[in-house]
Amino acid sequence: MSTLKLHGIVPPVVTPLNEDFSVDETSLRKVVRHLVDGGVHGLFLLGSTSECVFLNAGQRARVIEIALDEAGGRVPAVCGTMDPTTDRVIENARQARSLGVDGLVVTSQFYTRSSQGETIDHFSMVKDAVDLPILAYDIPVCTNLKLSRETIRTMYERKLICAVKDSSGDIENMRMLGLDFADAPDFAILTGSETVVDYALLGGAHGNVPGLGNVDPAGYVRLYEAARAGDWVAARREQERLIRLFQIVFQGVPHTSPNASGVGGFKTAMHLMGLIAHPHMSRPNRVLPPAAVERVKDILLATGML
Amino acid sequence: MSTLKLHGIVPPVVTPLNEDFSVDETSLRKVVRHLVDGGVHGLFLLGSTSECVFLNAGQRARVIEIALDEAGGRVPAVCGTMDPTTDRVIENARQARSLGVDGLVVTSQFYTRSSQGETIDHFSMVKDAVDLPILAYDIPVCTNLKLSRETIRTMYERKLICAVKDSSGDIENMRMLGLDFADAPDFAILTGSETVVDYALLGGAHGNVPGLGNVDPAGYVRLYEAARAGDWVAARREQERLIRLFQIVFQGVPHTSPNASGVGGFKTAMHLMGLIAHPHMSRPNRVLPPAAVERVKDILLATGML
Amino acid sequence: MSTLKLHGIVPPVVTPLNEDFSVDETSLRKVVRHLVDGGVHGLFLLGSTSECVFLNAGQRARVIEIALDEAGGRVPAVCGTMDPTTDRVIENARQARSLGVDGLVVTSQFYTRSSQGETIDHFSMVKDAVDLPILAYDIPVCTNLKLSRETIRTMYERKLICAVKDSSGDIENMRMLGLDFADAPDFAILTGSETVVDYALLGGAHGNVPGLGNVDPAGYVRLYEAARAGDWVAARREQERLIRLFQIVFQGVPHTSPNASGVGGFKTAMHLMGLIAHPHMSRPNRVLPPAAVERVKDILLATGML
Amino acid sequence: MSTLKLHGIVPPVVTPLNEDFSVDETSLRKVVRHLVDGGVHGLFLLGSTSECVFLNAGQRARVIEIALDEAGGRVPAVCGTMDPTTDRVIENARQARSLGVDGLVVTSQFYTRSSQGETIDHFSMVKDAVDLPILAYDIPVCTNLKLSRETIRTMYERKLICAVKDSSGDIENMRMLGLDFADAPDFAILTGSETVVDYALLGGAHGNVPGLGNVDPAGYVRLYEAARAGDWVAARREQERLIRLFQIVFQGVPHTSPNASGVGGFKTAMHLMGLIAHPHMSRPNRVLPPAAVERVKDILLATGML
Repeated sequence: MSTLKLHGIVPPVVTPLNEDFSVDETSLRKVVRHLVDGGVHGLFLLGSTSECVFLNAGQRARVIEIALDEAGGRVPAVCGTMDPTTDRVIENARQARSLGVDGLVVTSQFYTRSSQGETIDHFSMVKDAVDLPILAYDIPVCTNLKLSRETIRTMYERKLICAVKDSSGDIENMRMLGLDFADAPDFAILTGSETVVDYALLGGAHGNVPGLGNVDPAGYVRLYEAARAGDWVAARREQERLIRLFQIVFQGVPHTSPNASGVGGFKTAMHLMGLIAHPHMSRPNRVLPPAAVERVKDILLATGML
Repeated sequence: MSTLKLHGIVPPVVTPLNEDFSVDETSLRKVVRHLVDGGVHGLFLLGSTSECVFLNAGQRARVIEIALDEAGGRVPAVCGTMDPTTDRVIENARQARSLGVDGLVVTSQFYTRSSQGETIDHFSMVKDAVDLPILAYDIPVCTNLKLSRETIRTMYERKLICAVKDSSGDIENMRMLGLDFADAPDFAILTGSETVVDYALLGGAHGNVPGLGNVDPAGYVRLYEAARAGDWVAARREQERLIRLFQIVFQGVPHTSPNASGVGGFKTAMHLMGLIAHPHMSRPNRVLPPAAVERVKDILLATGML
Repeated sequence: MSTLKLHGIVPPVVTPLNEDFSVDETSLRKVVRHLVDGGVHGLFLLGSTSECVFLNAGQRARVIEIALDEAGGRVPAVCGTMDPTTDRVIENARQARSLGVDGLVVTSQFYTRSSQGETIDHFSMVKDAVDLPILAYDIPVCTNLKLSRETIRTMYERKLICAVKDSSGDIENMRMLGLDFADAPDFAILTGSETVVDYALLGGAHGNVPGLGNVDPAGYVRLYEAARAGDWVAARREQERLIRLFQIVFQGVPHTSPNASGVGGFKTAMHLMGLIAHPHMSRPNRVLPPAAVERVKDILLATGML
Repeated sequence: MSTLKLHGIVPPVVTPLNEDFSVDETSLRKVVRHLVDGGVHGLFLLGSTSECVFLNAGQRARVIEIALDEAGGRVPAVCGTMDPTTDRVIENARQARSLGVDGLVVTSQFYTRSSQGETIDHFSMVKDAVDLPILAYDIPVCTNLKLSRETIRTMYERKLICAVKDSSGDIENMRMLGLDFADAPDFAILTGSETVVDYALLGGAHGNVPGLGNVDPAGYVRLYEAARAGDWVAARREQERLIRLFQIVFQGVPHTSPNASGVGGFKTAMHLMGLIAHPHMSRPNRVLPPAAVERVKDILLATGML
């Protein structure tokens, strides 16, 4: 197994769909080009924003094939394996490996409530079955389990994981985690936040997995480069513009669920920007109602995206 | 579509596994006989206690085939379809229908947070795709969404569901739900509780889906029959014995997760009783440590099960 | 210290207020007579429904004096001591004892998050300071701490408490608690529910503290007497009528908070029934808007209360 | 009413206690000198860390008198008013005003669950009664209500509040709040965090209320000054040292509650540093066990505090 040290902007790639819910190859290629041309440092295929859990094995394979082909190795690509339990995650992981991804993204189990101990076992079994670099994905809002600092450290020391993607919203804990790993230059900490990326980078995080990066990859890359150059004023200015853009995720509620409002906000913006042919998501996610689409359009205009 | 009015004791059938994690046909047949001979009124295949989300499509099919064959139509069998999203639920539902189940058990989406409105859409899409009777399964601890009284009523009025299985633990809400459906003799309310079944039956619930019914189906049938006869003193006495037996679910923690302690408690008891060949669960659930197995044995002895 | 074994219907007595927010003596006397004449078995002064935490020491003293005087010893009276921390609870407890109450109702600390161990210390300190019988009040929705089965048992064995009032909504845990105390005839379990009192009594609970008992004490007494006589059909019928009446608590939202909708529903009903002069609560609780008052009136009419 | 624009480091002043739980005047004066000499920009008396809800009116008054006298007007002092309900908060607020504080810190109601609307009413009633500058204190872990962006904006526009102290842990929401108030130079945003103060300052927050500032005021002042000077590398370095020091708050569990472990960690450190005569807290908070005290000592040594 080769090692993998991710850094920079690694967006969870949106999965465009045709009207019959098959993967829209043309739009997906366009999105990948948009991201790579925007300067991103890696691609995260089949993340939560990619509607991973909505897709069956065939659709997942299709996404991986198209995206890897279009990316052409210019940036590393890691791939989500989300499913409720170990053996099903391993099935997804094997498929992803056979298609050539550079690393896997693995959450704790879900639906069934798990424990820290069984979660370590889970990662260990996945690692044994598919010896690719693994990013631990900490997303308790979906899994109902927060990966503790001790669990992440244990998994690192047992060489099960090479990175964590923190989507827990608990930035104070992530900060302490960063210090726990001050002695571990081969470990990467990525934040899943869209709105406090400058903070995370100031604190030593190595990268960012922003869903909003699908809409404005170049903005996040500028933010990252400013931070890397130590220009925190510029980083902050870019972050603030991106926060204003981020308000597109709140427009669909209450017609949609908050989740559909978020992913739908991204897809609606990308549709308005001509990046994808259709804004709809997998079933049963509702599309944004017309008034919300208008508000998204206004936000795009106000932030220089249209 | 034929209608389905469930009542009585409908256990979620435990899925026995061989050492290689394939479905243990011999043990599963023995379990089904144990349940049907114990007098249960229906079978719930592929429920949470059945480790549904741990099984792939092949394993799920195998469970359905064996259980239906062994049951031989003596009692109706409904089948869980649990997966995170609509189209994957529909895949499971189609497989279950083709194998001959009498009804489907459907939860709201999970992993992704949903809303009441998108949940109604979800049930509607499943119903359109697979016209079998559907039980709504309310299990917010797994799905993070409580089916509201209004949602359940709306789905009934739109003829999407014929019953609810309430595993929310909110028995006060279930009581009010019962009154909401006082005018609906074709709708069934089943409680997922093991410990307050007499209460639910006193309040007018039609049946019960007890995981512990795998261990002692005859006990739950006696409880149900006593309640149906209006002998609440006998029902309470039986319930109290079953509560003592239920303490087997608490013995594995903290070595196991609470979930593995529960399903593991059932499987350990069934193994000690000679019903299944192996007590282990799907990965990564941990088996009960030896001291916990001893405590389970003591509880079985104290409650007349060994 | 004399012992106290509560049983039966022990309503948390609503605190009527004058327009200037002083305690309305005339109305409070009328409420106490209404309850005692309705056949209740005890009074719980200064409970959550009584707006206890809204009242200062002077108002609390006034409520106790008036209520005890009006009750005239016909039924025992226990008194809430709710405040965030131990020494402030002790102050309240000493005042209540000096005014002649028969027992105290004590919660765990609140605002500050506590632990099971520090909660046992807390009860021990209150007991040491004020040697009156103590009911442990389990209301995690207000205190953020659920009293565990082990904590309640420990406090009983250390002679700190003589009863628990369970307002946690976790009736399955309360049922197991009941069995834990099968060997303890001097310990009382009271449910705080309005809607599953028949269940709790079937399971062996000794009594009930229903806020709705302020509106219809005779109904709850009939329910209790039917249960005590083993007539579960009659108990259930009365409970179902009371559930219909209980819908008065849901009418004020979203204009009011759910809490103000509940206590406000009781006060509005009592005002419509001529029991109290004003329906308003302590600040900042909002009164029910006119349309909600109309709905409360309709419910009172439909359930035979007007 | 004069206006108040807080900025910089405003620690919640620890309340030292004598063995009989009276306020330890000598130690409190020493603490105030330690803080003011350390360069802090304001004092927050009677905050959560000050054990506010544990103190009665007499103790609260004593704290205010001593602290104001010792501070001698060198820095502004605001004062917590925490109690469960409006009129009790007003009592506290009047006392604080009469003793000469510069502003009040007010939370939403607690114990009773509240709503955004009734919370706005609550602040309005406090403001009407006591016309001092008010900081809204957002601490949902204690109050069970998160002040929404809309609520904070509404209260500002109605001139009810001049600042918010955000102890919600939701730094992404606080960041968006900051942008909501970009047009309001008279409004201050203070973070209650100890571990991401550099982040908050980078994002435009005006100040910080760190409990750990009692132990190391000069460290937080250095952090603040570095941030104000735009030296984010220095700010980060200081923050990282303070995070290492912050680990003193985790040493008491499970003997103590997490809360007692936190405040107890501060008091133990201050006792070891010779700032306060006794490390104990109000009842029922448990003191740190000896092994935890040793760990606190080690941390103080490792971070240059001893």
